[in-house]
Order: sequence, then structure tokens, then C-alpha cells
Amino acid sequence: MRKGVLFVISAPSGAGKTTLCQKLSELFPEIKHSVSYTTRKPREGEVDGVHYFFVEKQNFLGMIEKGEFLEWAEVHGNYYGTSREFVSSMVSSGTDLLLDIDVQGGREIRKYFPDSVLIFILPPSKEILRQRLEGRMSDAAEVIERRLKIASDEISGYKNYNYVIVNDSLEKAFDEFASIITAERLKTERVDSSWIKEQFFKEDKNGY
Amino acid sequence: MRKGVLFVISAPSGAGKTTLCQKLSELFPEIKHSVSYTTRKPREGEVDGVHYFFVEKQNFLGMIEKGEFLEWAEVHGNYYGTSREFVSSMVSSGTDLLLDIDVQGGREIRKYFPDSVLIFILPPSKEILRQRLEGRMSDAAEVIERRLKIASDEISGYKNYNYVIVNDSLEKAFDEFASIITAERLKTERVDSSWIKEQFFKEDKNGY
Repeated sequence: MRKGVLFVISAPSGAGKTTLCQKLSELFPEIKHSVSYTTRKPREGEVDGVHYFFVEKQNFLGMIEKGEFLEWAEVHGNYYGTSREFVSSMVSSGTDLLLDIDVQGGREIRKYFPDSVLIFILPPSKEILRQRLEGRMSDAAEVIERRLKIASDEISGYKNYNYVIVNDSLEKAFDEFASIITAERLKTERVDSSWIKEQFFKEDKNGY
Repeated sequence: MRKGVLFVISAPSGAGKTTLCQKLSELFPEIKHSVSYTTRKPREGEVDGVHYFFVEKQNFLGMIEKGEFLEWAEVHGNYYGTSREFVSSMVSSGTDLLLDIDVQGGREIRKYFPDSVLIFILPPSKEILRQRLEGRMSDAAEVIERRLKIASDEISGYKNYNYVIVNDSLEKAFDEFASIITAERLKTERVDSSWIKEQFFKEDKNGY
């Protein structure tokens, strides 16, 4: 059976990653988004196993200890993590999966999933990155500078990725994103060789 | 400087390769088509160096002897060949090149141009391949069977290619073809790293 393709997307804050991932779900509804584990309490309407796997902090810490996360982080006292087993079982069952992960996490993915497809989104320029970070945050200049420094550090990790998209136009960047998805699915090692065999190499009544 | 990408396309007769290549030129006019050498005389309007490189038979045979062709063939007494030096100089100068070549030729390409992108076009099924070969040729059944046998042999070479497109709808197949071109150009090793460096890693007045 065909294995699923693991698509991994990373970007510095302000590069437009979230919008691109949302649009991708509309065009490719069959590509599932990875479901994270969290110790945060479910909000109104959130479903366990759909939006998150909701677990107790003690369970989460146990999973960290056993090395079960591809990546995890603590944000405002809550833990969030991506389970290696979850990703592995989705891919094994033939599901194409989109994993939105930070640049540090990207390195781990390559180690455990060498066939994964890593995509890096770049903002069009440093100045536009700055404008985007300023536009959505009412923070002091030094806070923005610190965020720019973090973004710069993250950008330096792009070389570990298979593809680089410069998001200077949402439409163009999305077309490129979709092209990568389409192309990767056409890789010879991923096409259905049994179908080809059945179609073109089965003897028929003409001996062909 | 960025090297050009060498796109190689192969298909059995009747798979729709010619139409796909023509449409590609419209969408990507900057991708040049490889110019073959031939011993055939130029026809009205054919320009040397544009449609073909027109050479004398003796010169052509000399080039064969010196191993200068990636592939060559004799058709109805005329010789046709793809010069390795021509392909090499186009790619070195940064030009993306489309090379329409038979399946035997595809193997040679990989040897001399390991970074080339090899795309194989499949007809949707054996029956439709048969219909297409019948539809355009008024030949005896045994001639068609022989052509089908040749097509079948050619199809068995698909595993040496990077991508496989099943041409069951021209629109879909062309979208897939264009996606491969777009995606390959976004590969990290092909993007302009000096631009990224200039944009994001040059110290500016803020020390960022």
C-alpha cells in the first residue's frame, strides 16, 4: 500500500504560514493536519482527537520522559506537543499529513521521517517582515527588534528544508505551495506501481 | 550563478507528450527547448540554430564517433541527435531546458546530468493507448500490435524517471506537468542563497 506523504511546513512569525495552511485545506481536503497533544483545557466546541488530544499534565510529562514527542513546548503554563506515534500511524495508513512545526522541530522530523517533504516559507524581505510584525503587535520597538532577531535565527535554518517559498504575493506563494504538494505525489516511488503493472504488463488475449 | 534545470520528458507514442510540451512553452516561455542536430536539409522557414543545427552527414558521423551525442537516431535516411555540449552549455549559462527524448536516451541523461529532472508520461490505460494508436494510423492490426509491444517496452523504463504523470485528462496532466516545473525550481539547492543572505543576514543600522 502507498504510504502517506508527510509535508512539514515552517516559517518565522510574520511569513504568512497560517493563511497558506488554511488555503491548502480548502484545495486538498484529503490532507490531514497533525493533531497535537495539550495539557490546556478544551474550549467550547473543541473535540478531543480532532482539535487536540487533551491530556493531564502528568501524562504529558511522562510522554516527554519516554521521548514520545517529535517536538514539544510550554506556552503560558500549558504544554503542547506532536506525538511521533501519531504521525507515524497516519503516514503508515496512507494518509498525507501536514505538520506545522517550528524550525527546531524540523530537524527532528528529518531524523525520524527521512521521506518527509520539508517546506520553508520566507517573508519577501526584512523590511516587510518588520512591517508585518509591527502591524499586528502594539509592542515597544525593542520587543519588535527581539522578534526580528528570533525570526532571523529561524530563517538561518532554511537550508535543512527541501523547498523554499518566498511569500511576496499570497496567490503566487499558494500556487507554489500547491505545486510542491502535487509534484511530490507524482514522484515515481509514490505512484501506484501495481496499477501500472496491471494496466500495461498483464498478458491479455492478444498476448500483449 | 544559478545553474539551469534540465527537464527531460519521455513517453511512449500516443501518450500525448507533444501536446503537453507545446502547452508548456506557452506557460513558461523562458524554458528553452533543446535544439537537435540533423543531416536533413532545412525546410522552408527553418532556421539553423533555432529549429535544428543543420550539418553534413560526414560531420554528424564524426560527432557520433567522438561520442558527442547524448542520443542519436537514423530516421528515413536522415540522422538526428542531441549534443551533450549544447545541453551542458545551456544549463551552465543558467537556462532551464526541456529535452524531449526517447526512453533509451533517458538513461544517458542521468549519467551525464545527475541533477536533471526526468518526467515520464503514461497513457491512461492500454486500451486507450490502443485507441490512440489506431485513431491516428491506418495500419494493419499486426502493425498496431507491434507498436503496442514497443510502447509496452518503453513503459517498463518508467522506473528510471523521477516523476510519473498519467495523461487521463489533458488539463489535469498539464497542471501536474506545470506543478513539477514550479516545484523543482523551488528546491532549496536551486534558490538564490545570496539573495536570502542579503535580505536577512546583512547587518543594518539597527544591528539586525
